[in-house]
Amino acid sequence: MSESPILLTPGPLTTAEATRRAMMRDWGSRDPAFIALTDEMRRRLLAVANGEGTHVAVPLQGSGTFIVEAAIATLIGPAEKLLVLVNGAYGERMVAIAKRLGRAVEAIAWPEDRPVEPGVVVAALRADPAVTHVALVHCETTTGILNPLSAIADAVAEAGRALILDAMSSFGALGIDLRATPVAAVLASSNKGLEGVPGLGFALIRPEALEAAAGRCPSLSLDLHAQWKGFERDGQWRFTPPVQVVAALVEALRALEAEGGPAARGRRYQANFETLLAGMRRLGFELYLDEAVQAPIIATFRLPEDGRIVFRDFYDALAARGFLIYPGKLTRAESFRIGCIGALVPADFERLLRAVEEVLVAA
Amino acid sequence: MSESPILLTPGPLTTAEATRRAMMRDWGSRDPAFIALTDEMRRRLLAVANGEGTHVAVPLQGSGTFIVEAAIATLIGPAEKLLVLVNGAYGERMVAIAKRLGRAVEAIAWPEDRPVEPGVVVAALRADPAVTHVALVHCETTTGILNPLSAIADAVAEAGRALILDAMSSFGALGIDLRATPVAAVLASSNKGLEGVPGLGFALIRPEALEAAAGRCPSLSLDLHAQWKGFERDGQWRFTPPVQVVAALVEALRALEAEGGPAARGRRYQANFETLLAGMRRLGFELYLDEAVQAPIIATFRLPEDGRIVFRDFYDALAARGFLIYPGKLTRAESFRIGCIGALVPADFERLLRAVEEVLVAA
Repeated sequence: MSESPILLTPGPLTTAEATRRAMMRDWGSRDPAFIALTDEMRRRLLAVANGEGTHVAVPLQGSGTFIVEAAIATLIGPAEKLLVLVNGAYGERMVAIAKRLGRAVEAIAWPEDRPVEPGVVVAALRADPAVTHVALVHCETTTGILNPLSAIADAVAEAGRALILDAMSSFGALGIDLRATPVAAVLASSNKGLEGVPGLGFALIRPEALEAAAGRCPSLSLDLHAQWKGFERDGQWRFTPPVQVVAALVEALRALEAEGGPAARGRRYQANFETLLAGMRRLGFELYLDEAVQAPIIATFRLPEDGRIVFRDFYDALAARGFLIYPGKLTRAESFRIGCIGALVPADFERLLRAVEEVLVAA
Repeated sequence: MSESPILLTPGPLTTAEATRRAMMRDWGSRDPAFIALTDEMRRRLLAVANGEGTHVAVPLQGSGTFIVEAAIATLIGPAEKLLVLVNGAYGERMVAIAKRLGRAVEAIAWPEDRPVEPGVVVAALRADPAVTHVALVHCETTTGILNPLSAIADAVAEAGRALILDAMSSFGALGIDLRATPVAAVLASSNKGLEGVPGLGFALIRPEALEAAAGRCPSLSLDLHAQWKGFERDGQWRFTPPVQVVAALVEALRALEAEGGPAARGRRYQANFETLLAGMRRLGFELYLDEAVQAPIIATFRLPEDGRIVFRDFYDALAARGFLIYPGKLTRAESFRIGCIGALVPADFERLLRAVEEVLVAA
């Protein structure tokens, strides 16, 4: 087994050794020990966002896209309508999912470097009473931009609609307080700010919303109402769970609590980001976003316009030094991305910066 | 970390330590090293069933049910019709999946202790020209019964229809030779006869069938045509893969080859089953199925009618001795199940039998 590289990506990311070690055991998926583990996972997921008493945690096998599709397929009825607020690829993907499912969907789009604007949302909801649900991406991994969750959530609630929040890359690191922020469903996955391994997503959903959606999902596998009822019935997963992924996530959730919860984790990621940004600027790189709208999750840097850096070569040279960066996803500018999340501290970014400097000197 | 119990279940099952150890690394999901790992996995999966040149391997995140649903949702068009051959819960589940998806579906049902009959299938296909696809469960985990794959596959092919084979619990252990057996799509998962950990399923599909299905799947996540095209384009997964599950499966596939392939693995499982059956009979237990139709995958035993054994107590007493058995799933008889698959040898079953004897004496 080779040494793990340092992953500077939006996930799968660098995990703690204790988290990986939790996968060294076999679990019977219907055994009381695993039922207890699943229960601990569901309780801890709710606690991360203060959702106890108002929401239920419904984990689902698969990647983050699976839980996003499951939420749309379960919550949006054939007579309802979804409005997606788009400023990146993950918003676009929600529109594509709803269209495929044959659900009524509309989008409002902003440029990739501009946050979603609450005022525009208020006006749109006033203009279209058919809209029943609004979907927002909290932190768009496309660029790393942070959208104004609180203002959007309040606007949607005041208009009497339900908010579906894709918190894939923010959950566990950027505070989401379900006691203060009206959200019908928060969606995220095991392998981002929670620092678990990939293989499952989860929704924190208001049980009333799930009850109203009974039998409505066109997919058996992705039916979050049936998935929830399965857990409520006997604590078991309806279909074979990725037991090692669950064990790793529980270990990672315990580590999150030991670190001091999302506030402490967010501070660590912020320190990672600041170390990265200061160093990259010193080396002549420019941040794509205005710092005021940048989340400390993943940073997009422009490739110098003089063409002296070719992404593939830059990637390979850093990979040879043990650091995996991430390609850009912008539609209009040449760029690359560096993630600030995972079991990493500022010293890891100092080492990365020395590697970047070496590569630039050698180029 | 506690010692793993011995899992005598249909999966997740007991894995080899080397397989679990393969999960101790972090992988960048878009890094060339992981692309190579995915490619090795896809090639090895095809090779297990001699599908090179006629089929393509399309892995999918999630449990076995996800890949079954994905195959039905992708391959059966709105103007087509599926005939499901049912003699257990997994056949029933395929009917439920197709109904949810709004696909035309019909079922022929046999009692749980009776294999599917090729003659009945021939007659049904003659009587209903609207049927375009037939679905069969190779080994029904409900009871452990083996269905006559070769005869059914020939009957379906002669009638000019396409066969979808749920080989969930047989793949890797009971030989499936795609050069000799006409099957449009074989479906299985990482955590059964392949002895990997749970978290992904896969289909071996004829590329013509996938090409014909472009854009047809109502689900973005479960679209096997798009999933396949993603791998063909750049070797990458469309959506975040469970990287550690993939690494474990590749390690498990290498171990399958080292063991001597499915023939050798099938012999080991057969020896496990024979040890189990002889011992359980000696202890007074009765096999639910006629031995002639029993696959060496999972065995169903009747609970004695005198009520002297209560499943829950029996389970707990064996669990306390390190063995996890499995509840029954019969609709008409009190029973329990013992799996013969996983990284286990006859000596493990001898130890189990001693534990069963102890529990019976203590009862």
